[in-house]
Amino acid sequence: MTTDAAKGSYVEPGKGYDRDMNYIPDRITRDGRDGWPVEAGRYRLIVARACPWANRSIIVRRLLGLEDAISIGYCGPTHDERSWTFDLDPGGVDPVLGIERLQQAFFKRYPDYPRGITVPAIVDVPTGQVVTNDFPWITHDFSTEWTEFHREGAPDLWPDDVRDEMEEVMQRIFTEVNNGVYRCGFAGSQTAYEAAYDRLFAALDWLEERLATRRFLMGDTITEADVRLFTTLARFDAVYHGHFKCNRQKLAEMPVLWAYARDLFQTPGFGETIDFDQIKTHYYVVHSDINPTGIVPKGPEPELWLAPHGREELGGRPFGDGTAPLPER
Amino acid sequence: MTTDAAKGSYVEPGKGYDRDMNYIPDRITRDGRDGWPVEAGRYRLIVARACPWANRSIIVRRLLGLEDAISIGYCGPTHDERSWTFDLDPGGVDPVLGIERLQQAFFKRYPDYPRGITVPAIVDVPTGQVVTNDFPWITHDFSTEWTEFHREGAPDLWPDDVRDEMEEVMQRIFTEVNNGVYRCGFAGSQTAYEAAYDRLFAALDWLEERLATRRFLMGDTITEADVRLFTTLARFDAVYHGHFKCNRQKLAEMPVLWAYARDLFQTPGFGETIDFDQIKTHYYVVHSDINPTGIVPKGPEPELWLAPHGREELGGRPFGDGTAPLPER
Repeated sequence: MTTDAAKGSYVEPGKGYDRDMNYIPDRITRDGRDGWPVEAGRYRLIVARACPWANRSIIVRRLLGLEDAISIGYCGPTHDERSWTFDLDPGGVDPVLGIERLQQAFFKRYPDYPRGITVPAIVDVPTGQVVTNDFPWITHDFSTEWTEFHREGAPDLWPDDVRDEMEEVMQRIFTEVNNGVYRCGFAGSQTAYEAAYDRLFAALDWLEERLATRRFLMGDTITEADVRLFTTLARFDAVYHGHFKCNRQKLAEMPVLWAYARDLFQTPGFGETIDFDQIKTHYYVVHSDINPTGIVPKGPEPELWLAPHGREELGGRPFGDGTAPLPER
Repeated sequence: MTTDAAKGSYVEPGKGYDRDMNYIPDRITRDGRDGWPVEAGRYRLIVARACPWANRSIIVRRLLGLEDAISIGYCGPTHDERSWTFDLDPGGVDPVLGIERLQQAFFKRYPDYPRGITVPAIVDVPTGQVVTNDFPWITHDFSTEWTEFHREGAPDLWPDDVRDEMEEVMQRIFTEVNNGVYRCGFAGSQTAYEAAYDRLFAALDWLEERLATRRFLMGDTITEADVRLFTTLARFDAVYHGHFKCNRQKLAEMPVLWAYARDLFQTPGFGETIDFDQIKTHYYVVHSDINPTGIVPKGPEPELWLAPHGREELGGRPFGDGTAPLPER
């Protein structure tokens, strides 16, 4: 997740919100062309349950069964201007990397690293250096480069036959929805906010229609596109509706999207990655320039996510020729 | 509406929210015992459409047909630390009182008036002095002291046969709901907020149950108790849900209360007093300590209030032996 916390604020008065998409672009590949070959046990995925961009990688790692090949470390939900910390771990230290702040892994690689210290990030355990925080490629490469370590029955999240359309769908979801909610919340003027709100809800209307006749975004099976939409929908009523003023409706008032989101939530690999308390705490505490009291809303009630969704009627095989992941160990 | 705007803030860190209920207690009565006799054309009611406490008096004046006896002046939705202004009027001056700020009427009576400059307020037109801002008595006295000027068919908003129970119901609505939402929004600590949230929703659950079998709070006809509940419900999804973090559910997710609120909204005298833009602008702009960006949410969509409510099935005669007010001239 990008953060301007170093500047102490997220909203620039008078301005729209522009996400800094300048990440460390290295990729971990089978051929190791960037110097980082696929290798079980060598890398550690650093995430925060609060963060939607990191949430993608938690879900995909689970769906593909990469738990044994790539270990995971969890940062706590809040952070200061020096970014994410391992405050959930005993002694506040990641037990594998031996560091207190994710920043240390960035500085180990680039002593003057000037941009946001973001999750998800992958760290090379032997050297303690961050390899990449380029989140769209992280999940892409879990699917396409780490195949030899996939579990038996791992789903194909990037099916060739729909790849082109899927890229278009994901691009629209990224700009209009994933990032669209931030554009509402961090708008620095009424005009920028209203334009962002209109764009966001136009996209949600499109998705409401698209998903009325399709069990999942690309048809009968779950793909990476669903993972990417889910992480925003999971945070919608808990955070974006109130905190980011995305309030034309709640997700719970968009019947198709709400049933779709519950369907995914109730699918192994999705719901168990969601911690609403950490999510709410993150946004309401860290963004002190839009919530200066730091008070975290008590609602809404999370058990609504477990209500029957009725989406089985649309048919489909969530994992295609594969199977659901087993419960987390 | 009380305001601590003079202090520049509404939230006191570490504290719960206490409303200053110390108003100017004078009453306008038939016998004129406080020096202010009932007299058509003598007084001017000053309100703001944004304010729920003022909204009561706008509705009751309409229901009783007191428009010719008591004139009305509208302040704009926002104000600074010197409180409400007549910025909606040509030249920013109330055409009857000739003042720019309601404060001037308070200072005319008490040059060192130390408390909040609040609406609703009644001003004695000949002297320009405020008579009272004691909102619960203002609507009470409209019903009980101004009877000779009531329109033909004016409803009895304080029916004798249910008076005792109605006082209890109104007291609970005042402490738990009308003021309960403010207690959530202006809580100065997480603990104070969570206690306020629990109290608020316990009361809304009680009302949801009470109104399941009763068309109106006291039975078959509208009373002052309904007016007092309505003004908070009308602001719930537009403001209190997000801005004050009253987010267990939206009003639109509490089926009985939501239908009840729409029933009243669609009853002459109620809905036409509501201006959602002014309401949202007021809260989101004036409370800069909880919304420092000043950005006003675009949602939710007000036309939802016009959807059929189905409450006729419960029977009842909204105006009892009286009639609905005619459309506003």
